[in-house]
Amino acid sequence: MTRKLVLLRHGQSQWNLDNRFTGWVDVDITEAGRKEAQAAGQLMRDEGLLFDCAHTSVLKRAIRTLYTALDEMDQMWIPVAKSWRLNERHYGALQGLDKAETAAKHGEAQVKIWRRSYDIPPPPMGDHDGGHPKFDRRYAKLDENALPATESLATTLVRVLPYWHDAIAPQLKAGQTVLVTAHGNSLRALYKYLNNISDSEILELNIPTGIPLLFELHEDLRVKSYRYLGDAEAAKKAAEAVANQGKSR
Amino acid sequence: MTRKLVLLRHGQSQWNLDNRFTGWVDVDITEAGRKEAQAAGQLMRDEGLLFDCAHTSVLKRAIRTLYTALDEMDQMWIPVAKSWRLNERHYGALQGLDKAETAAKHGEAQVKIWRRSYDIPPPPMGDHDGGHPKFDRRYAKLDENALPATESLATTLVRVLPYWHDAIAPQLKAGQTVLVTAHGNSLRALYKYLNNISDSEILELNIPTGIPLLFELHEDLRVKSYRYLGDAEAAKKAAEAVANQGKSR
Repeated sequence: MTRKLVLLRHGQSQWNLDNRFTGWVDVDITEAGRKEAQAAGQLMRDEGLLFDCAHTSVLKRAIRTLYTALDEMDQMWIPVAKSWRLNERHYGALQGLDKAETAAKHGEAQVKIWRRSYDIPPPPMGDHDGGHPKFDRRYAKLDENALPATESLATTLVRVLPYWHDAIAPQLKAGQTVLVTAHGNSLRALYKYLNNISDSEILELNIPTGIPLLFELHEDLRVKSYRYLGDAEAAKKAAEAVANQGKSR
Repeated sequence: MTRKLVLLRHGQSQWNLDNRFTGWVDVDITEAGRKEAQAAGQLMRDEGLLFDCAHTSVLKRAIRTLYTALDEMDQMWIPVAKSWRLNERHYGALQGLDKAETAAKHGEAQVKIWRRSYDIPPPPMGDHDGGHPKFDRRYAKLDENALPATESLATTLVRVLPYWHDAIAPQLKAGQTVLVTAHGNSLRALYKYLNNISDSEILELNIPTGIPLLFELHEDLRVKSYRYLGDAEAAKKAAEAVANQGKSR
Protein backbone atom coordinates (compact mmCIF):
# COMPACT_ATOMS: atom_id res chain seq x y z
CA MET A 1 0.00 0.00 0.00
CA THR A 2 1.27 3.45 -0.92
CA ARG A 3 2.01 5.86 1.92
CA LYS A 4 1.34 9.57 1.46
CA LEU A 5 3.40 12.40 2.90
CA VAL A 6 2.93 16.10 2.19
CA LEU A 7 5.60 18.71 2.88
CA LEU A 8 4.31 22.29 3.05
CA ARG A 9 6.43 25.40 3.54
CA HIS A 10 4.79 28.23 5.49
CA GLY A 11 3.32 31.20 3.63
CA GLN A 12 4.97 34.61 3.36
CA SER A 13 6.10 35.98 6.72
CA GLN A 14 6.50 39.64 7.64
CA TRP A 15 10.28 39.29 7.48
CA ASN A 16 10.17 37.49 4.12
CA LEU A 17 8.45 40.69 3.01
CA ASP A 18 10.97 42.92 4.81
CA ASN A 19 13.84 40.82 3.42
CA ARG A 20 15.31 40.12 6.89
CA PHE A 21 17.00 36.95 8.17
CA THR A 22 14.46 35.23 10.38
CA GLY A 23 15.72 31.82 11.57
CA TRP A 24 14.26 31.09 14.99
CA VAL A 25 12.71 34.54 15.49
CA ASP A 26 8.97 33.97 15.91
CA VAL A 27 7.69 36.22 13.13
CA ASP A 28 4.08 35.86 11.98
CA ILE A 29 2.79 35.36 8.45
CA THR A 30 1.34 38.26 6.48
CA GLU A 31 -2.18 38.45 5.06
CA ALA A 32 -0.68 37.23 1.76
CA GLY A 33 0.86 34.30 3.67
CA ARG A 34 -2.51 33.44 5.16
CA LYS A 35 -4.02 33.38 1.67
CA GLU A 36 -1.21 31.09 0.52
CA ALA A 37 -2.05 28.76 3.40
CA GLN A 38 -5.74 28.75 2.44
CA ALA A 39 -4.86 28.02 -1.18
CA ALA A 40 -2.60 25.17 -0.02
CA GLY A 41 -5.52 23.76 1.98
CA GLN A 42 -7.76 23.96 -1.09
CA LEU A 43 -5.19 22.13 -3.23
CA MET A 44 -4.92 19.32 -0.65
CA ARG A 45 -8.70 19.15 -0.28
CA ASP A 46 -9.14 18.97 -4.07
CA GLU A 47 -6.55 16.18 -4.12
CA GLY A 48 -8.82 14.30 -1.69
CA LEU A 49 -6.14 14.02 0.98
CA LEU A 50 -7.44 12.73 4.32
CA PHE A 51 -4.72 13.25 6.89
CA ASP A 52 -4.31 11.15 10.00
CA CYS A 53 -1.91 13.53 11.70
CA ALA A 54 0.31 16.56 11.18
CA HIS A 55 3.63 17.91 12.40
CA THR A 56 4.94 21.44 12.63
CA SER A 57 7.62 23.53 14.33
CA VAL A 58 7.22 25.67 17.47
CA LEU A 59 7.25 28.83 15.33
CA LYS A 60 3.94 30.55 14.66
CA ARG A 61 4.44 31.15 10.93
CA ALA A 62 4.43 27.37 10.43
CA ILE A 63 1.76 26.69 13.08
CA ARG A 64 -0.65 29.26 11.65
CA THR A 65 -0.03 28.02 8.10
CA LEU A 66 -0.87 24.49 9.26
CA TYR A 67 -4.01 25.50 11.16
CA THR A 68 -5.21 27.63 8.26
CA ALA A 69 -4.71 24.83 5.74
CA LEU A 70 -6.35 22.23 8.03
CA ASP A 71 -9.30 24.59 8.57
CA GLU A 72 -9.72 24.87 4.80
CA MET A 73 -9.81 21.05 4.58
CA ASP A 74 -12.17 20.74 7.59
CA GLN A 75 -9.52 18.59 9.28
CA MET A 76 -8.77 20.75 12.33
CA TRP A 77 -9.49 17.77 14.58
CA ILE A 78 -6.46 15.67 13.55
CA PRO A 79 -3.60 15.31 16.06
CA VAL A 80 -0.90 17.94 15.59
CA ALA A 81 2.58 17.57 17.07
CA LYS A 82 4.97 20.53 17.37
CA SER A 83 8.72 20.16 17.64
CA TRP A 84 11.70 22.51 17.73
CA ARG A 85 13.41 19.93 15.49
CA LEU A 86 11.27 21.17 12.59
CA ASN A 87 12.23 24.83 13.18
CA GLU A 88 13.87 26.89 10.47
CA ARG A 89 17.66 26.80 10.34
CA HIS A 90 19.08 29.07 13.06
CA TYR A 91 20.70 32.03 11.35
CA GLY A 92 23.05 32.94 14.20
CA ALA A 93 24.15 36.58 14.50
CA LEU A 94 22.41 37.41 11.21
CA GLN A 95 18.93 36.93 12.69
CA GLY A 96 16.96 40.15 12.46
CA LEU A 97 19.31 41.79 9.95
CA ASP A 98 18.10 43.08 6.61
CA LYS A 99 19.36 40.81 3.84
CA ALA A 100 20.29 43.59 1.44
CA GLU A 101 22.16 45.52 4.18
CA THR A 102 24.00 42.35 5.15
CA ALA A 103 24.93 41.82 1.51
CA ALA A 104 26.16 45.42 1.22
CA LYS A 105 28.24 45.02 4.42
CA HIS A 106 29.71 41.53 4.03
CA GLY A 107 29.47 41.28 0.26
CA GLU A 108 26.91 39.33 -1.73
CA ALA A 109 29.38 36.45 -2.13
CA GLN A 110 29.79 36.00 1.65
CA VAL A 111 26.04 36.19 2.21
CA LYS A 112 25.49 33.66 -0.54
CA ILE A 113 27.98 31.37 1.23
CA TRP A 114 26.07 31.69 4.50
CA ARG A 115 22.75 31.23 2.78
CA ARG A 116 23.66 28.56 0.30
CA SER A 117 26.74 26.65 1.45
CA TYR A 118 25.99 23.22 2.84
CA ASP A 119 28.09 23.31 5.98
CA ILE A 120 29.33 26.86 6.69
CA PRO A 121 27.18 28.49 9.37
CA PRO A 122 26.88 32.27 9.89
CA PRO A 123 28.66 33.76 12.93
CA PRO A 124 26.99 32.46 16.13
CA MET A 125 24.63 34.49 18.25
CA GLY A 126 26.32 35.74 21.43
CA ASP A 127 25.84 33.71 24.58
CA HIS A 128 24.30 36.71 26.38
CA ASP A 129 22.16 37.81 23.44
CA GLY A 130 18.56 38.05 24.68
CA GLY A 131 17.46 36.34 21.47
CA HIS A 132 19.39 33.15 22.30
CA PRO A 133 17.00 30.18 22.45
CA LYS A 134 18.11 29.33 26.00
CA PHE A 135 16.20 32.42 27.19
CA ASP A 136 12.99 31.36 25.44
CA ARG A 137 10.42 29.48 27.57
CA ARG A 138 9.51 27.15 24.71
CA TYR A 139 12.97 25.53 24.87
CA ALA A 140 13.27 25.56 28.67
CA LYS A 141 12.86 21.79 29.02
CA LEU A 142 15.69 21.01 26.61
CA ASP A 143 19.30 20.41 27.54
CA GLU A 144 20.98 23.72 26.79
CA ASN A 145 23.60 21.85 24.76
CA ALA A 146 20.88 20.83 22.29
CA LEU A 147 20.17 24.47 21.43
CA PRO A 148 22.00 25.98 18.46
CA ALA A 149 23.46 29.51 18.40
CA THR A 150 23.88 29.16 14.63
CA GLU A 151 23.32 26.40 12.06
CA SER A 152 24.38 25.34 8.59
CA LEU A 153 22.08 23.25 6.42
CA ALA A 154 24.26 20.27 7.43
CA THR A 155 23.70 20.76 11.17
CA THR A 156 20.02 21.52 10.56
CA LEU A 157 19.70 18.14 8.88
CA VAL A 158 21.39 16.45 11.84
CA ARG A 159 18.75 17.76 14.24
CA VAL A 160 15.77 17.28 11.88
CA LEU A 161 16.42 13.62 11.05
CA PRO A 162 15.91 12.21 14.58
CA TYR A 163 12.39 13.64 14.41
CA TRP A 164 11.80 11.94 11.08
CA HIS A 165 12.95 8.60 12.47
CA ASP A 166 11.22 8.86 15.86
CA ALA A 167 7.96 10.60 15.05
CA ILE A 168 7.09 10.78 11.34
CA ALA A 169 8.43 7.57 9.80
CA PRO A 170 6.67 5.22 12.30
CA GLN A 171 3.32 6.83 11.45
CA LEU A 172 3.91 6.44 7.72
CA LYS A 173 4.96 2.83 8.22
CA ALA A 174 1.72 2.27 10.13
CA GLY A 175 -0.13 3.40 7.00
CA GLN A 176 -1.02 6.92 8.08
CA THR A 177 -1.22 9.91 5.75
CA VAL A 178 0.99 12.65 7.19
CA LEU A 179 1.30 16.41 6.70
CA VAL A 180 4.48 18.27 7.70
CA THR A 181 4.24 22.06 7.68
CA ALA A 182 7.58 23.66 8.33
CA HIS A 183 10.33 25.90 6.93
CA GLY A 184 12.57 26.24 3.89
CA ASN A 185 15.59 24.54 5.43
CA SER A 186 13.98 21.94 7.70
CA LEU A 187 11.99 20.80 4.65
CA ARG A 188 15.11 20.79 2.47
CA ALA A 189 16.68 18.48 5.05
CA LEU A 190 13.76 16.04 4.73
CA TYR A 191 13.76 16.37 0.94
CA LYS A 192 17.49 15.62 0.78
CA TYR A 193 17.11 12.56 2.97
CA LEU A 194 14.04 11.19 1.16
CA ASN A 195 15.46 11.65 -2.32
CA ASN A 196 18.99 10.75 -1.27
CA ILE A 197 20.51 13.69 -3.11
CA SER A 198 24.00 15.11 -2.73
CA ASP A 199 25.22 17.98 -0.55
CA SER A 200 25.77 20.15 -3.61
CA GLU A 201 22.49 19.34 -5.37
CA ILE A 202 20.41 20.32 -2.35
CA LEU A 203 21.91 23.82 -2.50
CA GLU A 204 20.15 24.41 -5.81
CA LEU A 205 16.79 23.27 -4.49
CA ASN A 206 14.29 25.96 -3.50
CA ILE A 207 11.03 24.81 -1.99
CA PRO A 208 8.27 27.30 -2.81
CA THR A 209 6.05 28.65 -0.01
CA GLY A 210 2.44 27.51 0.27
CA ILE A 211 2.56 24.78 -2.39
CA PRO A 212 2.01 21.26 -1.04
CA LEU A 213 4.67 18.75 -2.12
CA LEU A 214 3.10 15.27 -2.21
CA PHE A 215 5.34 12.23 -1.80
CA GLU A 216 4.08 8.74 -2.49
CA LEU A 217 6.20 6.20 -0.64
CA HIS A 218 6.60 2.43 -0.72
CA GLU A 219 5.88 0.48 2.46
CA ASP A 220 9.58 0.65 3.36
CA LEU A 221 9.36 4.43 2.79
CA ARG A 222 11.45 4.51 -0.38
CA VAL A 223 10.16 7.27 -2.65
CA LYS A 224 7.83 6.10 -5.40
CA SER A 225 7.03 9.57 -6.80
CA TYR A 226 6.68 13.19 -5.80
CA ARG A 227 5.05 16.26 -7.25
CA TYR A 228 3.78 19.71 -6.32
CA LEU A 229 0.00 19.94 -6.17
CA GLY A 230 -1.73 22.35 -8.52
CA ASP A 231 -0.18 24.26 -11.38
CA ALA A 232 3.43 23.16 -12.06
CA GLU A 233 4.37 26.52 -13.59
CA ALA A 234 3.16 28.33 -10.46
CA ALA A 235 5.36 26.10 -8.28
CA LYS A 236 8.39 26.80 -10.47
CA LYS A 237 7.87 30.58 -10.36
CA ALA A 238 7.40 30.50 -6.59
CA ALA A 239 10.66 28.58 -6.17
CA GLU A 240 12.51 31.10 -8.36
CA ALA A 241 11.15 33.96 -6.27
CA VAL A 242 12.63 32.29 -3.16
CA ALA A 243 16.00 31.87 -4.90
CA ASN A 244 16.10 35.59 -5.67
CA GLN A 245 15.70 36.61 -2.02
CA GLY A 246 18.88 37.94 -0.44
CA LYS A 247 20.25 39.53 -3.58
CA SER A 248 20.98 43.15 -2.62
CA ARG A 249 18.51 45.51 -4.18
CA MET B 1 3.71 24.27 45.11
CA THR B 2 0.32 25.34 43.79
CA ARG B 3 -0.81 23.79 40.51
CA LYS B 4 -2.87 25.86 38.08
CA LEU B 5 -5.66 24.58 35.87
CA VAL B 6 -7.94 26.68 33.69
CA LEU B 7 -11.26 25.44 32.31
CA LEU B 8 -12.60 27.43 29.37
CA ARG B 9 -15.92 26.86 27.62
CA HIS B 10 -15.97 27.61 23.88
CA GLY B 11 -17.44 30.86 22.63
CA GLN B 12 -20.88 31.20 21.03
CA SER B 13 -21.48 28.70 18.25
CA GLN B 14 -23.79 29.13 15.29
CA TRP B 15 -26.25 26.68 16.83
CA ASN B 16 -26.12 28.40 20.24
CA LEU B 17 -27.30 31.39 18.26
CA ASP B 18 -29.92 29.35 16.37
CA ASN B 19 -31.02 27.70 19.64
CA ARG B 20 -30.48 24.16 18.29
CA PHE B 21 -29.21 21.07 20.14
CA THR B 22 -25.63 20.58 19.03
CA GLY B 23 -23.96 17.76 20.95
CA TRP B 24 -21.37 16.11 18.72
CA VAL B 25 -22.35 17.98 15.54
CA ASP B 26 -19.25 19.90 14.42
CA VAL B 27 -20.66 23.42 14.34
CA ASP B 28 -18.29 26.39 14.18
CA ILE B 29 -18.20 29.43 16.45
CA THR B 30 -19.68 32.74 15.31
CA GLU B 31 -17.79 36.02 15.01
CA ALA B 32 -19.12 36.86 18.50
CA GLY B 33 -17.71 33.53 19.71
CA ARG B 34 -14.33 34.37 18.22
CA LYS B 35 -14.35 37.68 20.09
CA GLU B 36 -15.21 35.84 23.31
CA ALA B 37 -12.20 33.59 22.71
CA GLN B 38 -9.93 36.59 22.16
CA ALA B 39 -11.24 38.24 25.34
CA ALA B 40 -10.61 34.98 27.23
CA GLY B 41 -7.03 35.00 25.93
CA GLN B 42 -6.58 38.59 27.09
CA LEU B 43 -7.88 37.74 30.58
CA MET B 44 -5.45 34.80 30.85
CA ARG B 45 -2.59 36.93 29.53
CA ASP B 46 -3.38 39.70 32.02
CA GLU B 47 -3.40 37.08 34.77
CA GLY B 48 0.16 36.22 33.71
CA LEU B 49 -0.68 32.58 32.99
CA LEU B 50 2.11 30.69 31.24
CA PHE B 51 0.71 27.38 30.06
CA ASP B 52 2.78 24.25 29.56
CA CYS B 53 0.11 22.41 27.58
CA ALA B 54 -3.55 22.44 26.59
CA HIS B 55 -6.34 19.96 25.93
CA THR B 56 -9.44 20.23 23.81
CA SER B 57 -12.10 18.10 22.12
CA VAL B 58 -12.19 17.01 18.48
CA LEU B 59 -14.92 19.57 17.75
CA LYS B 60 -13.95 22.75 15.97
CA ARG B 61 -15.85 25.17 18.20
CA ALA B 62 -13.59 24.16 21.09
CA ILE B 63 -10.45 23.84 18.93
CA ARG B 64 -10.88 27.29 17.37
CA THR B 65 -11.64 28.85 20.76
CA LEU B 66 -8.43 27.33 22.11
CA TYR B 67 -6.28 28.41 19.15
CA THR B 68 -7.73 31.93 19.24
CA ALA B 69 -7.09 32.31 22.98
CA LEU B 70 -3.55 30.87 22.68
CA ASP B 71 -2.85 33.24 19.79
CA GLU B 72 -3.94 36.18 21.96
CA MET B 73 -1.49 35.02 24.66
CA ASP B 74 1.30 34.37 22.13
CA GLN B 75 1.40 30.76 23.32
CA MET B 76 0.46 28.97 20.08
CA TRP B 77 3.60 26.86 20.39
CA ILE B 78 2.51 24.84 23.46
CA PRO B 79 1.55 21.19 22.96
CA VAL B 80 -2.18 20.72 22.34
CA ALA B 81 -3.89 17.34 22.73
CA LYS B 82 -7.34 16.67 21.30
CA SER B 83 -9.64 13.95 22.57
CA TRP B 84 -13.19 12.83 21.88
CA ARG B 85 -13.45 12.32 25.67
CA LEU B 86 -13.67 16.11 26.06
CA ASN B 87 -16.50 16.40 23.50
CA GLU B 88 -19.84 17.93 24.44
CA ARG B 89 -22.49 15.55 25.80
CA HIS B 90 -24.04 13.61 22.90
CA TYR B 91 -27.63 14.78 22.55
CA GLY B 92 -28.96 11.67 20.80
CA ALA B 93 -31.95 12.08 18.52
CA LEU B 94 -32.32 15.72 19.56
CA GLN B 95 -29.11 16.77 17.78
CA GLY B 96 -29.87 19.35 15.11
CA LEU B 97 -33.35 20.13 16.43
CA ASP B 98 -34.42 23.63 17.36
CA LYS B 99 -34.73 23.90 21.15
CA ALA B 100 -37.90 25.92 21.14
CA GLU B 101 -39.57 23.55 18.62
CA THR B 102 -38.52 20.57 20.72
CA ALA B 103 -39.99 22.27 23.80
CA ALA B 104 -43.24 22.98 21.95
CA LYS B 105 -43.42 19.33 20.78
CA HIS B 106 -42.33 17.41 23.88
CA GLY B 107 -43.20 20.05 26.48
CA GLU B 108 -40.80 22.33 28.27
CA ALA B 109 -40.77 20.00 31.29
CA GLN B 110 -39.56 17.01 29.24
CA VAL B 111 -36.91 19.10 27.51
CA LYS B 112 -35.76 20.40 30.88
CA ILE B 113 -35.46 16.78 32.06
CA TRP B 114 -33.33 15.88 29.05
CA ARG B 115 -31.24 19.02 29.44
CA ARG B 116 -30.98 19.17 33.18
CA SER B 117 -31.53 15.73 34.72
CA TYR B 118 -28.39 14.04 35.88
CA ASP B 119 -28.90 10.60 34.41
CA ILE B 120 -31.80 10.60 31.94
CA PRO B 121 -30.50 10.72 28.36
CA PRO B 122 -32.54 11.93 25.37
CA PRO B 123 -33.77 9.24 22.90
CA PRO B 124 -30.76 7.68 21.15
CA MET B 125 -29.74 8.49 17.62
CA GLY B 126 -30.70 5.72 15.18
CA ASP B 127 -28.05 3.14 14.33
CA HIS B 128 -28.33 3.97 10.62
CA ASP B 129 -28.48 7.73 11.13
CA GLY B 130 -25.73 9.27 8.98
CA GLY B 131 -24.88 11.55 11.90
CA HIS B 132 -23.92 8.59 14.13
CA PRO B 133 -20.29 8.97 15.26
CA LYS B 134 -19.40 5.54 13.86
CA PHE B 135 -19.67 7.06 10.37
CA ASP B 136 -17.31 9.93 11.23
CA ARG B 137 -13.63 9.47 10.27
CA ARG B 138 -12.41 11.15 13.43
CA TYR B 139 -13.75 8.25 15.53
CA ALA B 140 -12.75 5.48 13.11
CA LYS B 141 -9.93 4.17 15.29
CA LEU B 142 -12.18 3.70 18.32
CA ASP B 143 -14.01 0.53 19.26
CA GLU B 144 -17.56 1.17 18.05
CA ASN B 145 -18.83 0.19 21.50
CA ALA B 146 -17.06 3.23 22.97
CA LEU B 147 -19.17 5.59 20.84
CA PRO B 148 -22.37 6.97 22.36
CA ALA B 149 -25.68 7.33 20.48
CA THR B 150 -26.93 9.51 23.36
CA GLU B 151 -25.62 10.62 26.74
CA SER B 152 -26.77 11.93 30.09
CA LEU B 153 -24.52 14.11 32.21
CA ALA B 154 -23.81 10.96 34.26
CA THR B 155 -22.53 8.96 31.28
CA THR B 156 -20.65 12.00 29.99
CA LEU B 157 -18.80 12.14 33.30
CA VAL B 158 -17.94 8.45 33.02
CA ARG B 159 -16.17 8.96 29.68
CA VAL B 160 -14.55 12.31 30.61
CA LEU B 161 -12.92 11.15 33.85
CA PRO B 162 -10.53 8.58 32.32
CA TYR B 163 -9.05 11.46 30.31
CA TRP B 164 -8.62 13.49 33.49
CA HIS B 165 -6.85 10.60 35.18
CA ASP B 166 -4.72 9.50 32.22
CA ALA B 167 -3.82 12.78 30.53
CA ILE B 168 -4.51 15.91 32.58
CA ALA B 169 -3.88 14.95 36.22
CA PRO B 170 -0.36 13.55 35.59
CA GLN B 171 0.69 16.84 33.97
CA LEU B 172 -0.66 18.85 36.90
CA LYS B 173 1.07 16.55 39.37
CA ALA B 174 4.30 17.12 37.44
CA GLY B 175 3.87 20.84 38.15
CA GLN B 176 2.59 21.93 34.75
CA THR B 177 0.06 24.72 34.19
CA VAL B 178 -2.77 23.30 32.09
CA LEU B 179 -5.56 24.78 29.97
CA VAL B 180 -8.65 22.73 29.07
CA THR B 181 -10.91 24.26 26.43
CA ALA B 182 -14.08 22.24 26.00
CA HIS B 183 -17.88 22.24 26.30
CA GLY B 184 -20.62 23.01 28.81
CA ASN B 185 -21.13 19.41 29.90
CA SER B 186 -17.63 17.97 29.64
CA LEU B 187 -16.48 20.90 31.80
CA ARG B 188 -19.35 20.38 34.27
CA ALA B 189 -18.14 16.80 34.62
CA LEU B 190 -14.65 18.01 35.54
CA TYR B 191 -16.06 20.70 37.83
CA LYS B 192 -18.25 18.16 39.65
CA TYR B 193 -15.32 15.82 40.15
CA LEU B 194 -12.87 18.51 41.30
CA ASN B 195 -15.27 20.15 43.74
CA ASN B 196 -16.83 16.85 44.78
CA ILE B 197 -20.36 18.17 44.51
CA SER B 198 -23.59 16.20 44.41
CA ASP B 199 -25.57 14.96 41.42
CA SER B 200 -28.33 17.47 42.15
CA GLU B 201 -26.09 20.46 42.79
CA ILE B 202 -24.29 20.11 39.46
CA LEU B 203 -27.63 20.50 37.68
CA GLU B 204 -27.84 24.09 38.88
CA LEU B 205 -24.34 24.93 37.71
CA ASN B 206 -24.01 26.80 34.43
CA ILE B 207 -20.51 27.46 33.17
CA PRO B 208 -20.45 30.68 31.13
CA THR B 209 -18.88 30.68 27.66
CA GLY B 210 -15.55 32.39 27.08
CA ILE B 211 -14.72 33.16 30.72
CA PRO B 212 -11.65 31.32 32.04
CA LEU B 213 -12.24 29.46 35.31
CA LEU B 214 -8.93 29.28 37.21
CA PHE B 215 -8.42 26.47 39.73
CA GLU B 216 -5.52 26.50 42.14
CA LEU B 217 -4.78 22.98 43.32
CA HIS B 218 -2.68 21.44 46.06
CA GLU B 219 0.09 19.03 45.07
CA ASP B 220 -2.31 16.10 45.55
CA LEU B 221 -4.76 17.98 43.27
CA ARG B 222 -7.28 18.82 45.99
CA VAL B 223 -8.86 22.20 45.18
CA LYS B 224 -7.36 25.14 47.06
CA SER B 225 -9.47 27.82 45.37
CA TYR B 226 -11.24 28.67 42.14
CA ARG B 227 -12.53 31.81 40.49
CA TYR B 228 -13.57 33.22 37.14
CA LEU B 229 -11.04 35.63 35.68
CA GLY B 230 -12.13 39.19 35.02
CA ASP B 231 -15.33 40.83 36.13
CA ALA B 232 -17.37 38.59 38.50
CA GLU B 233 -20.65 40.24 37.51
CA ALA B 234 -19.99 39.54 33.82
CA ALA B 235 -19.38 35.84 34.61
CA LYS B 236 -22.66 35.64 36.56
CA LYS B 237 -24.66 37.25 33.74
CA ALA B 238 -23.08 34.96 31.16
CA ALA B 239 -24.00 31.90 33.25
CA GLU B 240 -27.60 33.11 33.56
CA ALA B 241 -27.81 33.60 29.80
CA VAL B 242 -26.79 29.94 29.36
CA ALA B 243 -29.43 28.80 31.88
CA ASN B 244 -32.12 30.58 29.89
CA GLN B 245 -31.33 28.74 26.65
CA GLY B 246 -33.88 26.10 25.74
CA LYS B 247 -36.87 27.90 27.17
CA SER B 248 -39.36 28.08 24.32
CA ARG B 249 -39.65 31.59 23.01
